[in-house]
Amino acid sequence: MHMYYDKLYLQKVCPKNKGARTLSAFESNKDGNKSMKIILDVMGADNSAAELVKGAILAKKEYGAELVLVGDAMEICDALTANGESINSWEIVPTNDVITMEDDPISIRRAHKDSSMAIALRLVADGKGDAMVSAGNTGALFIGATGFVHCIPGVRRAALASILPFSKPVLLLDSGANVEPSVDFLANFAIIGSLYMKKVMNVEAPKVGLLNNGAEEHKGTAFYREAHALLKQTEGIDFIGNVEGKDVPYGACDVLVCDGFTGNILLKTAEGVSKFVMKQISAMFKSDLIGKIAGVLVLKKAKAMKKRFDVKEYGGAPFLGLAKPVIKAHGNSDARALKNAIHQAITYAETGVIEEIEKTMQKA
Amino acid sequence: MHMYYDKLYLQKVCPKNKGARTLSAFESNKDGNKSMKIILDVMGADNSAAELVKGAILAKKEYGAELVLVGDAMEICDALTANGESINSWEIVPTNDVITMEDDPISIRRAHKDSSMAIALRLVADGKGDAMVSAGNTGALFIGATGFVHCIPGVRRAALASILPFSKPVLLLDSGANVEPSVDFLANFAIIGSLYMKKVMNVEAPKVGLLNNGAEEHKGTAFYREAHALLKQTEGIDFIGNVEGKDVPYGACDVLVCDGFTGNILLKTAEGVSKFVMKQISAMFKSDLIGKIAGVLVLKKAKAMKKRFDVKEYGGAPFLGLAKPVIKAHGNSDARALKNAIHQAITYAETGVIEEIEKTMQKA
Repeated sequence: MHMYYDKLYLQKVCPKNKGARTLSAFESNKDGNKSMKIILDVMGADNSAAELVKGAILAKKEYGAELVLVGDAMEICDALTANGESINSWEIVPTNDVITMEDDPISIRRAHKDSSMAIALRLVADGKGDAMVSAGNTGALFIGATGFVHCIPGVRRAALASILPFSKPVLLLDSGANVEPSVDFLANFAIIGSLYMKKVMNVEAPKVGLLNNGAEEHKGTAFYREAHALLKQTEGIDFIGNVEGKDVPYGACDVLVCDGFTGNILLKTAEGVSKFVMKQISAMFKSDLIGKIAGVLVLKKAKAMKKRFDVKEYGGAPFLGLAKPVIKAHGNSDARALKNAIHQAITYAETGVIEEIEKTMQKA
Repeated sequence: MHMYYDKLYLQKVCPKNKGARTLSAFESNKDGNKSMKIILDVMGADNSAAELVKGAILAKKEYGAELVLVGDAMEICDALTANGESINSWEIVPTNDVITMEDDPISIRRAHKDSSMAIALRLVADGKGDAMVSAGNTGALFIGATGFVHCIPGVRRAALASILPFSKPVLLLDSGANVEPSVDFLANFAIIGSLYMKKVMNVEAPKVGLLNNGAEEHKGTAFYREAHALLKQTEGIDFIGNVEGKDVPYGACDVLVCDGFTGNILLKTAEGVSKFVMKQISAMFKSDLIGKIAGVLVLKKAKAMKKRFDVKEYGGAPFLGLAKPVIKAHGNSDARALKNAIHQAITYAETGVIEEIEKTMQKA
């Protein structure tokens, strides 16, 4: 018996919560006849459980999603009450261990196998919800998801897939999970990334680029030269060759494959630089009276632009290649960012891209 | 006898140039009593030799620098004449081979050992000028510089060092030369980068960061974990630990060390993203009448900001650790960018940072 069924424990740590429901019977609802059920790990992020619970409340209101809150029952109940929510109308899975950002990711397998993250992953693996969302330790979520949820047969390794919000959306994978992948993982990433762009982002014929330090075929490390050669002969993708960092914002490709270390550097640099430039613009509009007048004139457009480059608008990134939807929300997600990550989980679960990857892999 | 002394050859390929001087006697002039002499490879860049010669003319006018133009004599003479320059007042070293962007970098050692780039490098190595500038093939320039100019004794490998123009200047090294360095190169980069920031950029106590995909010590690949451990025990630097891409624009460190592959991805991503965001802003100011009015109000400030993020303003990047100043100008440099790269070469030669590195390495 898993801890998440332990109603007595829940009542003990949270006496106010006597009537709280533990997990209800759950049937998958991909046909869309009823609302999606999202399992949410509310612990171990940069922000408190209270902030993430707020995000869950927003998502429930906005998308009509059912949420299962996994984490410290006391904190969850307090946060619900503080926001005027009735505890009885929420499903809570109480846990008493947390994996932190500083913990070794591998610890999710043993020392922290009963952490909120591990339990939330087992819940989605057991079919207790349509998707799982966490804003915690990325490495631990990756190892846990691979161990508890498993990859789709034929997929060598799941990849963290992030959308870059440029002239057109670019899917970057791997963006931080596989820091030292083998070359054939990259061919896998190209295939599953192309399917994601087709099914979820409606790109008819996604172009695949290999991130590299130059356009020429001989560029890069031995790993990247080998990856280039392998991608050239990979069937079922439209490989256009190497893509440099400077060309990524201009829609050089739809799917950008790379190792997770380099992908993470690219993702965070793009995030930091766009935020930095936007801040300079904002300062320009505040510098003097004339600047302020100009700022008022373009206020609406400037706000829309700021929103466009705000990572919190994108919420999270799916681990592509897993048999169930697992979404990594940004580590410093606030309520709004978490709400958006939940929305992404719903979209991902609804599109049936996992079934599509399964079919493709069976054929291959 | 090197080809660059062959006056007859020069007259043959460029009959108009009968009176052109070949290389004059040259004495180093680091004491600043006379103008600097910069050896310029005008071939093998994205733009034509004519465009680069224009940059040389601008630099001569603006900084009073003496320039030695190395490349196709016909193209050089035509470009000088077209810009109203008297050929007789320029030093030209005619060459008849070029290393292109597509050539294997290693070819500078044999097949292209008499290319304009190789000859320009040998000139600076032989003491025929204070510094050498090229906008050609980065890899070839690195291999050529290492072979012809040599590293300062004690420096394991030279690094391409680029300034990132953020809230404060950040020196990124390596930014593209050593795509697969060994870990001890990174400790070297930290030492020479710190000296550069002290002597050239007047940063009193430069902070050194290691680029990584997370702040925690255990983050990154095996290579980066090893580099972290080595930097922690490297004397003479102020190592502050791992730095993520998102924190680089906010002055997390003054010197950012990494392998050349990842550094190049960071550099080009930062360049592409800042340019992309600036373009969006520019479009906002052009979208309608009110936008245009706002644009006029902040025109001067917006222009200054555009200039700030324009890589062409920074011109080039030095190969730190070499016994002579060698500056890599941006591959797609126009005349203005090349002029700025020449300015950087002058500054670099004047500050005496090479002597400072020599002294430090002798002590170590």
